Amino acid sequence: MWGGRFAAGPSEIMQAINNSLPVDRRLWREDLAGSKAHAAMLLDAGIISVADAEAILAGLDIIASEYEAHGAPDRPDLEDIHMAVEARLAELIGPAAGRLHTARSRNDQVATDFKLWTRNACQQAVRLINRLQQVLLARAEEHAGTIMPGFTHLQVAQPVTLGHHLLAYVEMLARDASRFEAAWARAGECPLGAAALAGTGFPINRHATAKALGFERPTANSLDSVSDRDFALDYLAAAAQCSLHLSRLAEELINWASPPFGFVALSDQWSTGSSIMPQKRNPDAAELVRGHSGRIVGLFTGLMITMKGLPLAYSKDMQDDKAPTFEAHDLLMLSLAALAGTIESATFRTDRMREAAAAGFSTATDLADWLVREAGVPFREAHHITGRAVKAAEERNCDLADLPLPALQEIDARIDARVYDVLSVEASVASRTSYGGTAPVRVREQVERWKAILLAAEGSGEGDRSA
Amino acid sequence: MWGGRFAAGPSEIMQAINNSLPVDRRLWREDLAGSKAHAAMLLDAGIISVADAEAILAGLDIIASEYEAHGAPDRPDLEDIHMAVEARLAELIGPAAGRLHTARSRNDQVATDFKLWTRNACQQAVRLINRLQQVLLARAEEHAGTIMPGFTHLQVAQPVTLGHHLLAYVEMLARDASRFEAAWARAGECPLGAAALAGTGFPINRHATAKALGFERPTANSLDSVSDRDFALDYLAAAAQCSLHLSRLAEELINWASPPFGFVALSDQWSTGSSIMPQKRNPDAAELVRGHSGRIVGLFTGLMITMKGLPLAYSKDMQDDKAPTFEAHDLLMLSLAALAGTIESATFRTDRMREAAAAGFSTATDLADWLVREAGVPFREAHHITGRAVKAAEERNCDLADLPLPALQEIDARIDARVYDVLSVEASVASRTSYGGTAPVRVREQVERWKAILLAAEGSGEGDRSA
Amino acid sequence: MWGGRFAAGPSEIMQAINNSLPVDRRLWREDLAGSKAHAAMLLDAGIISVADAEAILAGLDIIASEYEAHGAPDRPDLEDIHMAVEARLAELIGPAAGRLHTARSRNDQVATDFKLWTRNACQQAVRLINRLQQVLLARAEEHAGTIMPGFTHLQVAQPVTLGHHLLAYVEMLARDASRFEAAWARAGECPLGAAALAGTGFPINRHATAKALGFERPTANSLDSVSDRDFALDYLAAAAQCSLHLSRLAEELINWASPPFGFVALSDQWSTGSSIMPQKRNPDAAELVRGHSGRIVGLFTGLMITMKGLPLAYSKDMQDDKAPTFEAHDLLMLSLAALAGTIESATFRTDRMREAAAAGFSTATDLADWLVREAGVPFREAHHITGRAVKAAEERNCDLADLPLPALQEIDARIDARVYDVLSVEASVASRTSYGGTAPVRVREQVERWKAILLAAEGSGEGDRSA
Amino acid sequence: MWGGRFAAGPSEIMQAINNSLPVDRRLWREDLAGSKAHAAMLLDAGIISVADAEAILAGLDIIASEYEAHGAPDRPDLEDIHMAVEARLAELIGPAAGRLHTARSRNDQVATDFKLWTRNACQQAVRLINRLQQVLLARAEEHAGTIMPGFTHLQVAQPVTLGHHLLAYVEMLARDASRFEAAWARAGECPLGAAALAGTGFPINRHATAKALGFERPTANSLDSVSDRDFALDYLAAAAQCSLHLSRLAEELINWASPPFGFVALSDQWSTGSSIMPQKRNPDAAELVRGHSGRIVGLFTGLMITMKGLPLAYSKDMQDDKAPTFEAHDLLMLSLAALAGTIESATFRTDRMREAAAAGFSTATDLADWLVREAGVPFREAHHITGRAVKAAEERNCDLADLPLPALQEIDARIDARVYDVLSVEASVASRTSYGGTAPVRVREQVERWKAILLAAEGSGEGDRSA
Repeated sequence: MWGGRFAAGPSEIMQAINNSLPVDRRLWREDLAGSKAHAAMLLDAGIISVADAEAILAGLDIIASEYEAHGAPDRPDLEDIHMAVEARLAELIGPAAGRLHTARSRNDQVATDFKLWTRNACQQAVRLINRLQQVLLARAEEHAGTIMPGFTHLQVAQPVTLGHHLLAYVEMLARDASRFEAAWARAGECPLGAAALAGTGFPINRHATAKALGFERPTANSLDSVSDRDFALDYLAAAAQCSLHLSRLAEELINWASPPFGFVALSDQWSTGSSIMPQKRNPDAAELVRGHSGRIVGLFTGLMITMKGLPLAYSKDMQDDKAPTFEAHDLLMLSLAALAGTIESATFRTDRMREAAAAGFSTATDLADWLVREAGVPFREAHHITGRAVKAAEERNCDLADLPLPALQEIDARIDARVYDVLSVEASVASRTSYGGTAPVRVREQVERWKAILLAAEGSGEGDRSA
Repeated sequence: MWGGRFAAGPSEIMQAINNSLPVDRRLWREDLAGSKAHAAMLLDAGIISVADAEAILAGLDIIASEYEAHGAPDRPDLEDIHMAVEARLAELIGPAAGRLHTARSRNDQVATDFKLWTRNACQQAVRLINRLQQVLLARAEEHAGTIMPGFTHLQVAQPVTLGHHLLAYVEMLARDASRFEAAWARAGECPLGAAALAGTGFPINRHATAKALGFERPTANSLDSVSDRDFALDYLAAAAQCSLHLSRLAEELINWASPPFGFVALSDQWSTGSSIMPQKRNPDAAELVRGHSGRIVGLFTGLMITMKGLPLAYSKDMQDDKAPTFEAHDLLMLSLAALAGTIESATFRTDRMREAAAAGFSTATDLADWLVREAGVPFREAHHITGRAVKAAEERNCDLADLPLPALQEIDARIDARVYDVLSVEASVASRTSYGGTAPVRVREQVERWKAILLAAEGSGEGDRSA
Repeated sequence: MWGGRFAAGPSEIMQAINNSLPVDRRLWREDLAGSKAHAAMLLDAGIISVADAEAILAGLDIIASEYEAHGAPDRPDLEDIHMAVEARLAELIGPAAGRLHTARSRNDQVATDFKLWTRNACQQAVRLINRLQQVLLARAEEHAGTIMPGFTHLQVAQPVTLGHHLLAYVEMLARDASRFEAAWARAGECPLGAAALAGTGFPINRHATAKALGFERPTANSLDSVSDRDFALDYLAAAAQCSLHLSRLAEELINWASPPFGFVALSDQWSTGSSIMPQKRNPDAAELVRGHSGRIVGLFTGLMITMKGLPLAYSKDMQDDKAPTFEAHDLLMLSLAALAGTIESATFRTDRMREAAAAGFSTATDLADWLVREAGVPFREAHHITGRAVKAAEERNCDLADLPLPALQEIDARIDARVYDVLSVEASVASRTSYGGTAPVRVREQVERWKAILLAAEGSGEGDRSA
Repeated sequence: MWGGRFAAGPSEIMQAINNSLPVDRRLWREDLAGSKAHAAMLLDAGIISVADAEAILAGLDIIASEYEAHGAPDRPDLEDIHMAVEARLAELIGPAAGRLHTARSRNDQVATDFKLWTRNACQQAVRLINRLQQVLLARAEEHAGTIMPGFTHLQVAQPVTLGHHLLAYVEMLARDASRFEAAWARAGECPLGAAALAGTGFPINRHATAKALGFERPTANSLDSVSDRDFALDYLAAAAQCSLHLSRLAEELINWASPPFGFVALSDQWSTGSSIMPQKRNPDAAELVRGHSGRIVGLFTGLMITMKGLPLAYSKDMQDDKAPTFEAHDLLMLSLAALAGTIESATFRTDRMREAAAAGFSTATDLADWLVREAGVPFREAHHITGRAVKAAEERNCDLADLPLPALQEIDARIDARVYDVLSVEASVASRTSYGGTAPVRVREQVERWKAILLAAEGSGEGDRSA
């Protein structure tokens, strides 16, 4: 297919390193869509005849049904999906197949195929993110008033509600969705028609093919069109950040499922056993999600490295764009679905959470705040007074609320009996009514806000066909 | 400052690993701005008195002028910039300083400071990107018709214009700017008032502080507010991709400055010499830009790794967010400025470019296209015919345009004398008039489009104060 | 210093991006050592006169005492530490200073300096690793018989001893030390005398300078000598793996210090408090160590990226080798020291560990093994029987050892009263006497083995001077 | 297989994320080898009967021949290769199969399998590295005296020989081989018998299984044994560094094959053509090798990230160890073979190299050195004089050797006619006789040294069976 200039074919190893069909056959739908749009445009522009166009389009439809039924081929001699399609088309319709490649090159073709795929992948990611958000939201609504310890440094800091905690991940996931949406939008320019690198002299209509394939407009520079893989990096950047959020959620599930915490019991369907220890119930899904974040970040880093320092225009290094992107996508989709299933079916042990929230002087800040508010003490001084109260409780091996009033007044005479109103975890949580705070009333407001947002997102969603 | 519960101070090594002041002192402007907004809000909300507020605001202004004059302090015992400011404020105004920390924590404070800094850094990046785009644009306009070889695989592919080539980078940089703008926008929610992790019971007005600091709105979940470093990762993702584009441009400058290419001569001001080889003129700036892309991607990867698997809410690991972000920013700003200077002052050797464009059968595709257009040959067949013509020229050690007509007709009888019209590099370039193509007429159109866009961007730009 | 060919000096930004003195001034000791060895060799080889050599060596000694007293300079116009030294030497001894650069170049000079530094850094890393091993070993000896839960998937798996657990890290650290030792050995070839890239025509004695600087031999290829940064990557690879081990230990300390675990109480000297929550005692050192692993891996990744695709010989990109290596070294040394201090001063709560070890049916495998051993049941079947026993205990809300014999015999008639001997955590731990197993007798054997190894290592250690 | 405690099986997505068989089926040879060694040891230790052992060993042999013929199975319900083997064994020999899992767990089993595989992979890497070294060595011998420009900063620096340049890569590859050998040696401890995490109470003989599987000794700590993936990281660290070296060689081949350089012509078998530009001859193999270095570094980074912060002992995250290691190995083996083929069959254009070496004042350093040697000028001053000579030649548009003597003497009167002896590239190259220098005599010495080393390595090589 490289013309009449080569006396010898590639060596076996050359063929092995060069053959991208095992990877890019996944793009067959996009490749056929691109070819159909190109053929229709060539016809409209008078570059090919009606007869040739009809033969080409019919042939492409036959190929589509063949691939749908049996999968795209995986023969090493076919080199890539573009050559596989063109070779099959030639078998089906003869020399007219050779007119399809007019005014295009594999360089713009593969950029178009892969960009189409990536845009679909962005949409699929948004849908699975929304699904996980909905699961989190449902559990957050259920537990808007469930008290658990809020941790910083994995030390008990202040009591919070489980609903509030779960909503934190809804926020993170919303940023993730916005990154995939931005990646989708930034990938809105169609490279088809950039040809090898310089554009073409044929009177093609790039705006038509761009529109036919769902893009906003054609790319504005042909050299950039075939050299650019920003869209894959944008996808991977969004995937990497999303996977990091999932790794945090996974870490928490693993901690919470650990007996010393005992905050959550995983369902049979979402945990595994041991080949040797019959009592085990392992949070494998969460662990694999956490592990996958390493792989996804690594795959992203890998493609960044591959793209470093490449001169314009297309270099074959860029063939290494698809394997990492496909793999990262598969890992992320599985991770999103696995966490949704794990959380949906998990049993939160609210008694253990409540108990842990009350331990560890978690309402010490409430005491300090009370001193500021009720006794006019500057916060920094109130903080010191409270530190001494904590020490006193530690020495008596009791909780702050269990210190008798004289003991508190010995530390600071301004303390009076009203202070006990703020030392319970319920009072503490209920008091944190600042915007975005953990008070159940605030949590329920946020739940309502998110329900409306996700409902709207669902309404505007569209199907995709990527896998 | 940690209250009365600690019997012993930190060990020396503990202090060394914990002290973040050498890094976060760079945030002093943001810290003072955040404290002023917070104090003003505390006053408006009736949480502190007019007298205290006035003392605090005056004290903060004194600190600002001290730091402006002498820099922020770097004393290990001060732990971080927040403590440094608060300690100095206490020296200046006494116990009232202790009221400033009401209803906030270092957790929301540092998130706010760093987010403010990062937003400024995004704006600075956009400005320097625009500046480099303008330099490229000016050179592109100058060389809209200058012919050079277009490469794929670093092999001569088809002739293009230098202006077209430079515009490819203008496109890349536009995507980079859009990423920084998206990062700026996504960082539009203010964490101040999230307090330690749970919000506060004081009747604060978070919308007011958010507005005062230039944010769109307050964050909606206090746990997320203090756990989130997405904004730094968004900055770094944009910086990494931008640095990769710069590494490609740098690679090309290095190649072009190499004697075998000889496409560009760097100015004295933007090249260096050798300590041992007096004839050397090295493209150091371009090499350092290329090298810096490695560091920037590494710094980004590092922060992604640091954030992996952290449970909510704040963990001290997150203190490792600033050093890599600051360093990446400095490296990127220097890189953008260095390439602008290098390109602005470079001399393009248009004679060498023209010569190289004509060598290597770069118009072979034009011959194939001619066969399609004028002789109705299917492209795939035309490609084979052209391959044989190239082989013939190779054997005669001449260029395609130098093959006599009989030699061409021996290969394919459908070729006639008109073919010579398309075999010159000038004809080839002029013919590629498809949208985004390399024809000078298209290049000049794009130059005009970009001039208008950048003019508009400049008009809307604002000052910043980050360093 | 670049000779008489440049009409204009570098622009300000060029100078800023090019100036490496703020980073490489840290190499002043190595630079002076290299220059002294070179000067002595030039004298021995008859390339410079006795008078010149004496002047040079005396001048270098003066510079050494100046830098020792006041630090190496940080003036941007001096470009790098090599130029700084040479310029100062010229001030001190006049034109004879110009003879020092005979038969060398900055390319081989910087490779030599940095390799010397890296070799010292390897030795320093080994020493701090050994120190942490000793701390772990002392605590392991103390707790050779202390029972704690052994976790897999953070689920209670089988009881183990704390000593055994701590020794796992001694093993990891031993592999880390071996990596630094291998890096030190692989960096045993001296680049000095490779000159710019091609070697030199002066009759130098490279074996002499190599030996004088503590290397094994000179490098064998001058192009490789100035292009090679493997030694820095080897250092960073060892540092990255070591930091990952430390991140695992840090994660465990953070988990163990968390109230739901409560396995460890950190000392005042190795924990921090909160600016707002007076009860907090945060494991900041461990968190920073875990965070630093992200930075160190990122710095390593960064230098790998920088080195990717560089043509021979020296390219300026390679100037970006030192900043990441220095930073990774500082972070790792601090991490090793911080964990040693944290663990040395920590209080292990053995009661909490014992209690957690007994919960969660941790001796289920012992029951299965008993069935295999005493009743001849195939393991797979024994595993199923035990699973049913666990279920029965779960339903009765009791532990395995609390199940009455009839209940066990109802599950499998082959169980008899002897089974209770294996169902206690003490019996379980004591039984695991396979080589490398957790039985206290095995743990004490390993403690003795390691004490001997570390004693031997200490004996062979030498001082270094890197910082 | 997880015993009788689970009421419901895993959900479909749980099964999909958990199933490792598509990846770890590649370990079937290692798994069978491990099982055979374990069974033989159980028999010797009297833990299983002769009859059971014979049945098990015979069954494992049948499975081996089945897998050899048809491949290991890929059924999602089998979970992993260990379960697949055990399930098949149960079909073949009945309940006795259940005795094989006595005194082991999948945790030590998978660590053993994967370590065996990795050790083989190290040996395979060394063999392919040696093969590439031999190819380079043959071409270096052929071109020990071929003159080419030596570059720094991709600027012509000094003339070198092609043989010398190729030998630089032989040196790098030798360091790579030493890393794989060190990784192999460091992985010399056998985890089998560590069981789940704590060792076992059965009287197993771990030294026997270690020896049977070719390890040096058993691991010394059972917790470490099942938590450790250092061996995979060691492999990947070696692979990453090796791939970076290959990326540099690839970059040079791509540059050299580019028409402006024209230093090398690639064979038909190791280059590819274009679907649209019939004249193209692309260095695809070299580009893919360069691209693969990005992927390999990314895969390495990914596994480092996955391992970060994992508590002891085994966590399921560690299942993500094999996919990146297998992929990196495949990419590296292909890269080594592809470069060997490319270089072996390449035609070096020695005329173009010679021509480029003479251009660009590449012997300026020789002039400076002459002034030092013959006229006693300090090097720094000689460097300045030479700079002026270069400028004079530049102005006359001639080479240094073409400057008439009076012109040189006008610059410095100490120059005389003997100087012309050092201004030719041949004289320059021949003069660089320092150890490791580029003089042909030195290059030939190094060729002989390497031939002997590689011959010795070949003699000691052994077969492997990894794929």
